[in-house]
Amino acid sequence: MKQTIQSVVMLGAGNVATHMALALKNSGVEVLQVYSRTFSSAEALASRIGCPAISELDELSGRADLYVISVSDDAIAGLVKHFPLKDKFLAHTSGTTGMEVLNAATSRAGVFYPLQTFSKEVAVDFGEVPLCLEAARDEDYRLLEQLAGRLSGTVAGVSSEERRQVHVAAVFACNFVNHMYAIAADLLEENHLSFDLLKPLVQETARKVMHTAPGSAQTGPARRNNREVIETHLRMLDANPGFREIYNFVSESIINRYKEDNKQGTE
Amino acid sequence: MKQTIQSVVMLGAGNVATHMALALKNSGVEVLQVYSRTFSSAEALASRIGCPAISELDELSGRADLYVISVSDDAIAGLVKHFPLKDKFLAHTSGTTGMEVLNAATSRAGVFYPLQTFSKEVAVDFGEVPLCLEAARDEDYRLLEQLAGRLSGTVAGVSSEERRQVHVAAVFACNFVNHMYAIAADLLEENHLSFDLLKPLVQETARKVMHTAPGSAQTGPARRNNREVIETHLRMLDANPGFREIYNFVSESIINRYKEDNKQGTE
Repeated sequence: MKQTIQSVVMLGAGNVATHMALALKNSGVEVLQVYSRTFSSAEALASRIGCPAISELDELSGRADLYVISVSDDAIAGLVKHFPLKDKFLAHTSGTTGMEVLNAATSRAGVFYPLQTFSKEVAVDFGEVPLCLEAARDEDYRLLEQLAGRLSGTVAGVSSEERRQVHVAAVFACNFVNHMYAIAADLLEENHLSFDLLKPLVQETARKVMHTAPGSAQTGPARRNNREVIETHLRMLDANPGFREIYNFVSESIINRYKEDNKQGTE
Repeated sequence: MKQTIQSVVMLGAGNVATHMALALKNSGVEVLQVYSRTFSSAEALASRIGCPAISELDELSGRADLYVISVSDDAIAGLVKHFPLKDKFLAHTSGTTGMEVLNAATSRAGVFYPLQTFSKEVAVDFGEVPLCLEAARDEDYRLLEQLAGRLSGTVAGVSSEERRQVHVAAVFACNFVNHMYAIAADLLEENHLSFDLLKPLVQETARKVMHTAPGSAQTGPARRNNREVIETHLRMLDANPGFREIYNFVSESIINRYKEDNKQGTE
């Protein structure tokens, strides 16, 4: 068995696949092919990598050291079922799917999960992306670890169960956070105000938790259990029942969290 | 009337009052006194400024160019009611309270609202804090504008109604965002994992919306309407019914927002 991974095939051409394939190429790994069910998607990524695009699994090269499966969670099992090569090293990049989904195609299963949010058009410094690794075999884990170390400064061994927990936490800290930004932008737009006004606040809110526990950094009307302000805000959101409901639930959750603090009384 | 504000009295000694008083002092404004109902709070801030602390309104100096009221929203009206000096220039720093609350004490009402999150122990670059201004009289608006320009690079005239809208948006973009971080930190801690793992994701999520509209930056299982992952996450949150409910509501809100996109079908 080789001591390092020198070549990969990328299966998938979405946001994660795109950034992963580019990072692999930049770190000197040869990307042999990009596969996607949709040829135009495969072609869009392959042209950035400078490798062939394929949309049929039976065109897969047999000589890759690693096959990276970076498709949506609900498509992984189907792809594995039709994977035509035997006992290759397969790793998926999903936060939620267990490693065992790969067992249908190989005894050399692994996970290579980048804990970051990717958009195709936004460049990401992959060196800052924590990579969560898992492998069925120790020697494969070492191969992934060596590969991950070439891509990123943060590499962690994370079991399938832990990875699922990390992923749920990431949904709160990234996807839900972004949705809060989106609601804020909508509310401002409805009033012909610019989201630019909020940008320093957005940055400071994220910056603060780099060195303060988020629980200690909480501010705002719900933190102070200021019912008057909360009621005013709820009335202002009457025209947006969906946003109103979120405002209400999240405020109650904050009030509940700091109940004991507020009982002591503050100025 | 003076052309610039050279001296202020700070009424309040909380997070906003603290950062505001320090920023005023640093920009060369004389802070004559710090008032708080609680003497020890007034003293804690006054000692950082190097000015007298008072806890009785009848000790207020009559010679300040501006009296900044930076107390909690529900305490403003009471303070104004007992304000002992006539026709002074009063400005509050609240996002939600209308300017008219000051009319009981003066015809020279104003608002000086810093759109930022402040914690007493965390330093803030006030030059980056957008200041939202309002004043009953044009000449007072110009005084506030001149003062604000000494403190910050971003100054905007914002009416009481607009300010309330901005404040609701800020609650989503800051307070609710921070609560999402706190939930993520809790979930990781329950599994003996460190919040450090998520820090690059937190930073990238905020960084992305500096140049991409938040609505376009959305990622994650709800964005893709991936019901299988959402159901898995909800089951994992069974032990935390409060977090489960937020997960459910926010996910439905995201799904709803991108319904049309997902109808088109994506890989």
